[in-house]
Amino acid sequence: MIEDKAPNKTSLAELGEFGLINHLTEHFKISHSSTIRGVGDDAAVLDYKDKKTLVTTDLLVEGIHFNLTYMPLKHLGYKAVMVNLSDVYAMNGTASQITVSIAVSNRFPLEALEELYAGIQLACTTYNVDLIGGDTTSSQTGLFISVTALGTADEENIVYRDGAKENDLLVVTGDLGAAYLGLQVLERERQVFDANPNAQPDLDQYTYLVERQLKPEARKDISKLLEDLKVKPTSMIDISDGLSSEIIHLCKNSNVGCSVYEDKLPLDPQVISTSEEFNMNSTVVALNGGEDYELLFTVAQSDFEKIKGNPNFSIIGHMTEKNDGINLVTRANQKMELTAQGWDAMLKKD
Amino acid sequence: MIEDKAPNKTSLAELGEFGLINHLTEHFKISHSSTIRGVGDDAAVLDYKDKKTLVTTDLLVEGIHFNLTYMPLKHLGYKAVMVNLSDVYAMNGTASQITVSIAVSNRFPLEALEELYAGIQLACTTYNVDLIGGDTTSSQTGLFISVTALGTADEENIVYRDGAKENDLLVVTGDLGAAYLGLQVLERERQVFDANPNAQPDLDQYTYLVERQLKPEARKDISKLLEDLKVKPTSMIDISDGLSSEIIHLCKNSNVGCSVYEDKLPLDPQVISTSEEFNMNSTVVALNGGEDYELLFTVAQSDFEKIKGNPNFSIIGHMTEKNDGINLVTRANQKMELTAQGWDAMLKKD
Repeated sequence: MIEDKAPNKTSLAELGEFGLINHLTEHFKISHSSTIRGVGDDAAVLDYKDKKTLVTTDLLVEGIHFNLTYMPLKHLGYKAVMVNLSDVYAMNGTASQITVSIAVSNRFPLEALEELYAGIQLACTTYNVDLIGGDTTSSQTGLFISVTALGTADEENIVYRDGAKENDLLVVTGDLGAAYLGLQVLERERQVFDANPNAQPDLDQYTYLVERQLKPEARKDISKLLEDLKVKPTSMIDISDGLSSEIIHLCKNSNVGCSVYEDKLPLDPQVISTSEEFNMNSTVVALNGGEDYELLFTVAQSDFEKIKGNPNFSIIGHMTEKNDGINLVTRANQKMELTAQGWDAMLKKD
Repeated sequence: MIEDKAPNKTSLAELGEFGLINHLTEHFKISHSSTIRGVGDDAAVLDYKDKKTLVTTDLLVEGIHFNLTYMPLKHLGYKAVMVNLSDVYAMNGTASQITVSIAVSNRFPLEALEELYAGIQLACTTYNVDLIGGDTTSSQTGLFISVTALGTADEENIVYRDGAKENDLLVVTGDLGAAYLGLQVLERERQVFDANPNAQPDLDQYTYLVERQLKPEARKDISKLLEDLKVKPTSMIDISDGLSSEIIHLCKNSNVGCSVYEDKLPLDPQVISTSEEFNMNSTVVALNGGEDYELLFTVAQSDFEKIKGNPNFSIIGHMTEKNDGINLVTRANQKMELTAQGWDAMLKKD
């Protein structure tokens, strides 16, 4: 699909590195007053005044993080930005700038990179962040996308991973497991297509799952929502590797334990029905699926009234003494220790 | 050499992603007061107070930017940092933090990454920058290193590429072309080794060239030197792609022309003798070699007395009206237009 076979495609070699960067970034507009100088000098220059600076970076690798047979390049560009912005939001900060570096083999024509940058630009516009720099180079095989996101926060608003206290409530935004199941659906379609290239995919009943996989949205809104509610989380993290793994991070960094309740995990109906169809346990999918890009945070018990009933939030458990461990309380009221890995064996129901 | 064949090497899969990051970064110390939180949360938190923030990023790709048959991993880690710091210094700023993301195939044992990070750490210690974050992931083939460097500057000290004026002097630090010739020497040794694995390389007469290729140093000292001399450049850029290409950047960004004098180009004696040996024109090597990581800047004529005779600086030309073009004035007093590419044909003397 993206191989450079069509005679009307433009090869990257025709442009050279500087031509390529200019071509790909010329339509990006600078909108932040903190961006003094963006693309085009040795370094970008930013003015964050009296705010603290937030910096995060993530690398996406073809064949490891994405498969171009079902990930359109525009969506990939968008997602590469989301993955990074999500980390800034998880500090309770405002994202304001990104740099994007790509290494790309010459099997990609210019038009493929234009698609990728169209997705990056859409993300920049939608989330109000400026592209301020980057690097474009060749690779011997495959596509690599390295994004660094910068943002700001007032010192008193920053939320770290290490502030959770015993008895704090554990809260998650949105719902869980859909992105993982979206990947399973897309992977199954790919196998069907491999076997019969004339097969037409029917994804109607999986639209939410597929969208969560291909076009995740970072929770820019949560910081404002919490501010309006006058709630400052005691700790926060974004859910990239799966709920279970992130809970363990919060607990270890904060030196506390946790009880999570299986019946409180927020699941979309498509997650429940598709888990069933794939013969998977939906709780395991929610705990270990990953790529949800929701926020997981803890709040003091005294904030319970402000959080409960809010459709954006699900209270899924509470923090405990460290010695109590990190546990899932099942629907049958059994305690099971949560582990970041090792659930793979449970993914297939039997 | 770095293939994972030895039975006592540790495979990356044994550690997992979090174990790997922790293992590689645990010996890094935070030394900057501006680093409030480094590795270990969703984002790093920095406090630049009333300074402006500088951000730059560069991506190094195996087989494109480096060849592990003659680039030791420790040197590679060091160089990956230098390449980025050089861009901060080219803004007349102070580098203070870096993030490092690597994608690595499982042919690399843990010990190889330890070497890489030892080089990164040496660079951090020597140049006083903090490692504050990054990402570690798999690749299907090869090694990719993406570094983002952050730094600061007072607004009035920042030097851009676009401030050069007609009649300004063009100045370069250090000497030119050595890194490129170092690469030629190493490449020749590799071919000798391929033909006869028992051949012992004799690099004694190329030590400076090889060091400039394998262990370049960014010019952290220049900013202080210029401050002491009370000279603020009107424009500045670092020399990564070759003097010729960087002069063209300065001219185009500043909307001026330039005359560069062949007999003023600073060449180390090893550059002259080795150019001779390789049957190359040393001027062409100096103009197009690349990877020098020296600084190129312009100063007002009135600063001439402060710059001249300083062993760190060579005045190699002056800026002219745009319509005069960008020219090299040869030893024979002939004018030739400088081009960023297209000199390849001249690389071999005939």
